[in-house]
Amino acid sequence: MNLQISAVLRAYFDGSFIPAQLIAEICDRIDAYPDPAVWISRVPRASLLARAAALDPAQRDQMPLWGVPFAVKDNIDVAGMDTTAACPAFAYRATQNAVAVEHLIAAGAILVGKTNLDQFATGLNGTRSPYGAPRNVFDPQYISGGSSSGSGVAVGAGLVSFALGTDTAGSGRVPAAFNNIVGLKPTKGAVSATGMVPACRSIDCISVLAANVGDADLVYRVMRGFDPTDGFSRSIRDIPLRNEKFCFGVLAAEDREFCGDHEAASLYQSAIDQLEFLGGTSVAIDYAPFRDAAALLYEGAFVAERYVAIGDFAAAHRNEMDATVAHIVAESGSFTAAEAFQAIYRLHELAQLAKVQWERIDFLLLPTAPTIFTVAQLLADPIRYNSLLGIYTNFVNLLDCAAMAIPAGFCSSSHLPFGVSLIGPAFTDRALAYHADRLHRALKLPVANTGEFPAADAVLATPSDGRLFIAVAGAHLSGMPLNPQLTSLGATLSRAALTAPGYRLYALANTVPAKPGLVRDPGFTGPGIAIEIWSLSQAAFGTFVASLPRPMCIGKIELAEGGEVPGFLCEPAALAGATDITHSGGWRAFCRDR
Amino acid sequence: MNLQISAVLRAYFDGSFIPAQLIAEICDRIDAYPDPAVWISRVPRASLLARAAALDPAQRDQMPLWGVPFAVKDNIDVAGMDTTAACPAFAYRATQNAVAVEHLIAAGAILVGKTNLDQFATGLNGTRSPYGAPRNVFDPQYISGGSSSGSGVAVGAGLVSFALGTDTAGSGRVPAAFNNIVGLKPTKGAVSATGMVPACRSIDCISVLAANVGDADLVYRVMRGFDPTDGFSRSIRDIPLRNEKFCFGVLAAEDREFCGDHEAASLYQSAIDQLEFLGGTSVAIDYAPFRDAAALLYEGAFVAERYVAIGDFAAAHRNEMDATVAHIVAESGSFTAAEAFQAIYRLHELAQLAKVQWERIDFLLLPTAPTIFTVAQLLADPIRYNSLLGIYTNFVNLLDCAAMAIPAGFCSSSHLPFGVSLIGPAFTDRALAYHADRLHRALKLPVANTGEFPAADAVLATPSDGRLFIAVAGAHLSGMPLNPQLTSLGATLSRAALTAPGYRLYALANTVPAKPGLVRDPGFTGPGIAIEIWSLSQAAFGTFVASLPRPMCIGKIELAEGGEVPGFLCEPAALAGATDITHSGGWRAFCRDR
Repeated sequence: MNLQISAVLRAYFDGSFIPAQLIAEICDRIDAYPDPAVWISRVPRASLLARAAALDPAQRDQMPLWGVPFAVKDNIDVAGMDTTAACPAFAYRATQNAVAVEHLIAAGAILVGKTNLDQFATGLNGTRSPYGAPRNVFDPQYISGGSSSGSGVAVGAGLVSFALGTDTAGSGRVPAAFNNIVGLKPTKGAVSATGMVPACRSIDCISVLAANVGDADLVYRVMRGFDPTDGFSRSIRDIPLRNEKFCFGVLAAEDREFCGDHEAASLYQSAIDQLEFLGGTSVAIDYAPFRDAAALLYEGAFVAERYVAIGDFAAAHRNEMDATVAHIVAESGSFTAAEAFQAIYRLHELAQLAKVQWERIDFLLLPTAPTIFTVAQLLADPIRYNSLLGIYTNFVNLLDCAAMAIPAGFCSSSHLPFGVSLIGPAFTDRALAYHADRLHRALKLPVANTGEFPAADAVLATPSDGRLFIAVAGAHLSGMPLNPQLTSLGATLSRAALTAPGYRLYALANTVPAKPGLVRDPGFTGPGIAIEIWSLSQAAFGTFVASLPRPMCIGKIELAEGGEVPGFLCEPAALAGATDITHSGGWRAFCRDR
Repeated sequence: MNLQISAVLRAYFDGSFIPAQLIAEICDRIDAYPDPAVWISRVPRASLLARAAALDPAQRDQMPLWGVPFAVKDNIDVAGMDTTAACPAFAYRATQNAVAVEHLIAAGAILVGKTNLDQFATGLNGTRSPYGAPRNVFDPQYISGGSSSGSGVAVGAGLVSFALGTDTAGSGRVPAAFNNIVGLKPTKGAVSATGMVPACRSIDCISVLAANVGDADLVYRVMRGFDPTDGFSRSIRDIPLRNEKFCFGVLAAEDREFCGDHEAASLYQSAIDQLEFLGGTSVAIDYAPFRDAAALLYEGAFVAERYVAIGDFAAAHRNEMDATVAHIVAESGSFTAAEAFQAIYRLHELAQLAKVQWERIDFLLLPTAPTIFTVAQLLADPIRYNSLLGIYTNFVNLLDCAAMAIPAGFCSSSHLPFGVSLIGPAFTDRALAYHADRLHRALKLPVANTGEFPAADAVLATPSDGRLFIAVAGAHLSGMPLNPQLTSLGATLSRAALTAPGYRLYALANTVPAKPGLVRDPGFTGPGIAIEIWSLSQAAFGTFVASLPRPMCIGKIELAEGGEVPGFLCEPAALAGATDITHSGGWRAFCRDR
């Protein structure tokens, strides 16, 4: 039973199975799974079967996650279940679902249980929990990554279709890399954090772990939305990136740190090569501002946010906490407000430096983590190895970025997965998903630890990059007198093309500058008229069209190659005194030969 | 000699005087002005005359402030002059112009001198300076307002055309209110703060004091722009507000605090009435989130930003500082980082509550200050009276707003001016200017203390609110089958109208839903065709036009009332088999009678 969301939904549609059958299968899988550290609490089988039975098939079309099983990291509230944040002394019984969970349940998803994590989401490794260390789904000697460790394993082992994580410094992405799955870290504020135990509240995000990019994107779309009860919630917009001829930033040779893991280095280069094969151009960026921002997260006063979140609790319950986490929280209380503002100032300065790099690229392609470590290594030196895990993830929320971590291959020696992340400015989440999905599929990797490949019908519909085409046939052609009207609006030439045969071109009388008029004549079989197709933003298109003088107008033009684009036509009244110049094949040829 | 910018530029153009004559006049005025506390340093007369002589008349068209005299608050750097921040022990010789000053000088403006301020911009009253307390231009018993006190007086007394202030909590607006001038407080980050002595760096703004709104807007346009050397600089966009049928927020009766000044209360109501007369609808808002944010500025950890700015200096030079300012700075060092983040969280929560109010209105109209006090009152109780001055200004930068303070009349008993502020979300600066200019002119007040009225040619050109018109004649008319295509894009009906006589309407053959085609026939004198004019955003216009199927197209339609709007036409090929229904007068009438 393939648990990828689109596969589940198709199976329901086909009648291959019903939710109760899927639930029974999942419960068996979870019961049989050998790692006892994945779950902190589970919904009883009988309750799950009741929930499955209560789903009305008639509502399937209105519920995009109808009957889809998922898990929730145990620092996110689910009504009627304990929220522990992996600290039994902290546990409380939640009375309401977190806003994000509520959206998922309203969409028909079935909550299976709550997953283990690094205590208070403090860690990137998965070993800091009294509930045990969830093990890597490919090799139990190795860490699963954290802090969303249990969620990463639940998806990586094929126990649920998707899971919620949280991500402050990389907690939603590192487990994705280590378990060969996808980690969508939304733009901060896009998904309400109401009902999540804060870590560093100004940069906390609820994230998605899923088997493929389309699944993660679907869950994200269901969860997101402005929520006035979350002080950091923001109004959402989708910012496009170029889908074609895009540029992506990569680490320069001297910035490639893989902790000696040459296979990881090689897999990173392969991902770059593959993305270039898909039409991108790689640009070695100045990584300094990103590295410096990453360092700021744990070396500066921002850790005081952890003190706000759990300082009082930690002071009273130090002996009931993971020793490493307790140490980190205790130290975070010593900063002054002046130091906090100095850190904020420094971050703003780094953001301006990063902006210079963003102007050169559409998005960044970075390793998600430089390498992987064993559970034994982390337990022996819990701070140092943990820090190394975050060198490519820590800056992302501080610099207000969206990120999508995807699988990028396996080390041939260890058979452990390696991952890369696509990172873009705030609100590029969906634009990143487009590129991430293409790259993930092109790498031809089985998903999670299931042997399945990304479901075909989870392919993302090509999102519009927000630009519109306009076909020009006369004085707006490149090099012609009115072409600057287009270029000044940011229009770019997409390609030259030919109209379908049923068009005539006329040289209009008494026009300054001289202009032709393109007119459709359905019965006519002419040579087709040479045109140029330009692209421009919706707003520029609107401004341009609204400014055109009579007798020019904009309609749909049929192309010789098939299809239609908006383009220049002219009012019939303008043909008085005009000369049919269709035989010339186009305005440029006519002007040249005249 | 009228020093309003547009009057100066017109006089240069007319040949009424040349820059050297203006400089001579200004130097005389400044020398003769009785208040010795306005200036901290001045540019010598000989240097000013040399600068005036060096301005090339041939460059006048490229220099929007050619020959315009201005002053700079002495916490902003001017190369070669001391920056004192009104603290002699702090003074340093600046080697570079502040970025904003550099823009003004490059535009041809002539710097006359540097003005007094509340020390380190800490105050809203103008009495906290060892250089003396600049006095209100209408009555020397009264304060000028601060902290941009000298700049407010320099403009209010007609000594310069405009002056730069700074504004953290209201320092650029309160002096405008008290001296009957305009104070433009830009969106934070729109004008580079590089070269300004920080107060609370995350919310500091360089501001403009000028005699009329158009002048302030012009200076703002010259100064603004992204500057990567300022960590808080932002990329600029102009967000439109509705120019017509707008709603503005006002204080509910129970929120109107004027410290017992009934005349101020009455002048506030008069400004509301006038703005309603100009087409606005007043909405009493829930002022609580704004009031709570205002309180947060001085009662919470945000004051630690002052400690970052000058804490070390203050610790070493306490006896060389104004006693009140030294006290405030010393206290600001005691907050913890946890308290700073808690204040930031609280501010975010208040911003979400404020957002609910912004959804009801285009902008706020508030008193700039509740009342005015004497210099003696401030000296007797420097903290309490100062706090009262900021109750309507303190929240503005914290909640990321733009503001324009304008004159709003005189108290008949004291003959002192009262001011109101238009406040909108970030980047509505220019949209606010449009409304502020209309209101200022409608109030028919002389500007500053000069007896002049706002220069006629400083009228702001009506800025576009970013919406475009489209005329529809068929299935997109309201109530017709395709009308939802418009409304779903946010289009709104502007008005019904009639085409010019030279149009024919045809019922097209074989269209579903049934559609007419509008065709221009220049020689024809028909009844005109009934149409509707809708408005929609540029992007919506672009999307809408690009989605239209053949044979519809969009050109310019001539109106019976004169003028043209973009609207629906159709390709001539579609007229095959069509029926001329021009006699019906329009598609709605034709459908009804059919």
